[in-house]
Amino acid sequence: MVTEALKVLIWNEYIHEIRDENVIRIYPDGMHHAIGTALTRLLPGVDVRTATLAEPEHGLTEEALAGTDVLLWWGHAAHEAVEDAVVERVKQHVLGGMGLIVLHSGHWSKIFTSLLGTTATLQWRSSGDRELVWTTTPSHPIAEGVPNPIVIAEQEMYGEPFDIPAPEEIVFISSFSGGEVFRSGVTFTRGRGRIFYFSPGDQDYPVYHHPDVQRVIANAARWASPRSRERRVPSLRGPVAPVV
Amino acid sequence: MVTEALKVLIWNEYIHEIRDENVIRIYPDGMHHAIGTALTRLLPGVDVRTATLAEPEHGLTEEALAGTDVLLWWGHAAHEAVEDAVVERVKQHVLGGMGLIVLHSGHWSKIFTSLLGTTATLQWRSSGDRELVWTTTPSHPIAEGVPNPIVIAEQEMYGEPFDIPAPEEIVFISSFSGGEVFRSGVTFTRGRGRIFYFSPGDQDYPVYHHPDVQRVIANAARWASPRSRERRVPSLRGPVAPVV
Amino acid sequence: MVTEALKVLIWNEYIHEIRDENVIRIYPDGMHHAIGTALTRLLPGVDVRTATLAEPEHGLTEEALAGTDVLLWWGHAAHEAVEDAVVERVKQHVLGGMGLIVLHSGHWSKIFTSLLGTTATLQWRSSGDRELVWTTTPSHPIAEGVPNPIVIAEQEMYGEPFDIPAPEEIVFISSFSGGEVFRSGVTFTRGRGRIFYFSPGDQDYPVYHHPDVQRVIANAARWASPRSRERRVPSLRGPVAPVV
Amino acid sequence: MVTEALKVLIWNEYIHEIRDENVIRIYPDGMHHAIGTALTRLLPGVDVRTATLAEPEHGLTEEALAGTDVLLWWGHAAHEAVEDAVVERVKQHVLGGMGLIVLHSGHWSKIFTSLLGTTATLQWRSSGDRELVWTTTPSHPIAEGVPNPIVIAEQEMYGEPFDIPAPEEIVFISSFSGGEVFRSGVTFTRGRGRIFYFSPGDQDYPVYHHPDVQRVIANAARWASPRSRERRVPSLRGPVAPVV
Repeated sequence: MVTEALKVLIWNEYIHEIRDENVIRIYPDGMHHAIGTALTRLLPGVDVRTATLAEPEHGLTEEALAGTDVLLWWGHAAHEAVEDAVVERVKQHVLGGMGLIVLHSGHWSKIFTSLLGTTATLQWRSSGDRELVWTTTPSHPIAEGVPNPIVIAEQEMYGEPFDIPAPEEIVFISSFSGGEVFRSGVTFTRGRGRIFYFSPGDQDYPVYHHPDVQRVIANAARWASPRSRERRVPSLRGPVAPVV
Repeated sequence: MVTEALKVLIWNEYIHEIRDENVIRIYPDGMHHAIGTALTRLLPGVDVRTATLAEPEHGLTEEALAGTDVLLWWGHAAHEAVEDAVVERVKQHVLGGMGLIVLHSGHWSKIFTSLLGTTATLQWRSSGDRELVWTTTPSHPIAEGVPNPIVIAEQEMYGEPFDIPAPEEIVFISSFSGGEVFRSGVTFTRGRGRIFYFSPGDQDYPVYHHPDVQRVIANAARWASPRSRERRVPSLRGPVAPVV
Repeated sequence: MVTEALKVLIWNEYIHEIRDENVIRIYPDGMHHAIGTALTRLLPGVDVRTATLAEPEHGLTEEALAGTDVLLWWGHAAHEAVEDAVVERVKQHVLGGMGLIVLHSGHWSKIFTSLLGTTATLQWRSSGDRELVWTTTPSHPIAEGVPNPIVIAEQEMYGEPFDIPAPEEIVFISSFSGGEVFRSGVTFTRGRGRIFYFSPGDQDYPVYHHPDVQRVIANAARWASPRSRERRVPSLRGPVAPVV
Repeated sequence: MVTEALKVLIWNEYIHEIRDENVIRIYPDGMHHAIGTALTRLLPGVDVRTATLAEPEHGLTEEALAGTDVLLWWGHAAHEAVEDAVVERVKQHVLGGMGLIVLHSGHWSKIFTSLLGTTATLQWRSSGDRELVWTTTPSHPIAEGVPNPIVIAEQEMYGEPFDIPAPEEIVFISSFSGGEVFRSGVTFTRGRGRIFYFSPGDQDYPVYHHPDVQRVIANAARWASPRSRERRVPSLRGPVAPVV
């Protein structure tokens, strides 16, 4: 386990918060700033950095990634604008051990679908549904310290069927006022990297100001942290000698 | 695959339907009769039999089980009245290959908890919630031919956390008008036996008259059918000779 | 379930069998021909077609794929020569329901790694190890009718760690004379498509002439067959109306 | 996470080590003593206690279990002599959060089969096979710091098929000189309790003196440790009020 301070890098496309009035009001400094402030408060000693789409290489240089234990990903309006070479670089770091937390509409990002192999499509409606986030596995570290259910007054609805591979663990399942359900907190492993997808967090609602949502993300950052900072992407080995 | 006619045995404790006026009205001949009639219609050539708690050995004699491909189980008021020796006999047949479909409050039966190893507890409320049964894996044979969601006008609410081992497959997740969610259709394998748990079906509502619910149960009976009628309970083998 | 004759398309890069003397001796008409002959014998009524790298669009035109229930994939020397556009086309068909059986060194094909999201790397040695293929889940349809273990006199060794996501089912685990182990028969689902990876089958040994290996591939073709021939790639749906 | 010193209770039937000359020579103070000494060395601050079959209530009183974070279980010759009431007590503690590590022939103990629901049978041979323990998921905390493979010069062979439910994680797969394979390190969750089964450890060979085996058990003790010392067995809750 990494015992020094956890190094978290929050990536945000950062478009809605400089373009849409409603979103600017909710997140005047961007969602990455709101999440970062929460993590700093909840994870003593954490080293939080941020990166955005507009930066050179989207702020995801080899050096930035090499210095990251867990990467958070929020994207929505500009998935296609993320350069393939950067996506491939991020993927190699995940396979080598970096943790990855994909948030909300990040389900449709290049990095997430590339790691999953499916379309990650779903059904949706943005009309202020109340979302209830139910913990299905109460002993899971990511669910520690949150009420069952978490009540989010208003959220975009994300509903099943959600086209993902069968998750390794389902931590949360949500219901919405419209009657839909969604596997809203699910885990995967790819290579040496731990991945957590957490769906609450549409830009139009102040979801990342919600203390329980913040707690889940902080728990997930700890959970996804690699055991070693050395990146070791699995590789072909051979011809190897027989053991006997 | 068993290619002859599928042999289904429907076990019902058959207490509510002879004791409670409301239930008598809904199921004058018992739930097992309603389910059996549906299976006969939906599965051409199926051989449907029934058994109830009051029969000698609860109708689950060695001979009855030996002639069964898939056993359905509905119990609620009298789980404790089921004899341990009969439970053990049923368990051996499941481990040897017989399919098992556990319905509704059968989650708390001796046979289900004995095969799962957990408490199978949950939260509940019987006040006529509308249940929506969402298919999460649309390509699963048990979900074939049913709408997404199945709408059940009134049902007992069963909610998470549901204390079961992580299922092999989650076919359905339900929401309820009260806001709860539930993994309502889940699969397990124990020994050579396939197990499907399906939660809709409280005695106070006409759930087993619902055509989509009937379709799910018919699909599940086909799915749980063993590939061979020979029962082969896994057994210890040794000392065996080395292969080399 | 597709009840008409199963339509199987066997894709083979077909390089070793026209270039390497030893391989030409074993498979004078190509591995695809050997496998196809076996499937024709084992699956009554099956419609077997073949396609190879050298054909236009590698023989994997939209029309060819649309008429395929289950695609087999053997590749080794020329993974990079497979056009990305063709890989993407195959992927869409798998997500829409077409079954996929990946054989031996196909583990490192573009289509397999793209569906899995990992490197699919492993350790290897090609020096005629004896491989024992053990069935770990004897009730699985893919294991039907094969001895436990299957004995393959000579094979390339593929050893753990095998960098794949946790499989949904592990049907076979192999050991090798050199002492290694390998998850040699594993299943995945992506979208609506069922995927089976089966590792025996190096070009330098007559593995596809082995009756038990042929039986496994025939079983897998049946298992991976879609329930409907309509391809339905999961897609985003919204905004949807609330159910209530 | 329990941050105070980890409390480990090692249960051993302690029969072979006082009855069989060969075993007495290897473990003059019992296997529990050898394992305890290793854990004390490898887990700074750990509080190790032991309990044996011959003690009143087999040393597994309510008080002893209440003071335990992780219970280790070694049994072989006297599974039937373990009282059902004690097994049930242990089971309730596991469901409530206590970690459980089942060793070697403990696969056939009442507590393990009762938590799994299957026969846990396998094939075996005790003739000094060399066992190679391969790590299949190198990033798993239980595999930290051990070579791949672990080489055990002489061991009883345990071979597939191993009749267990599909494990949540497969950490290790072993091969034996005789050619067999075995899922030798597997995890399960039941209720709030984490369970790890680890097969190396026959009484006739000095396996628990092997530093890599000791390391695995120490890693597993940490991994299985509950997040809270409060035992909370899942329970039925109802009727609950709707959230809305």
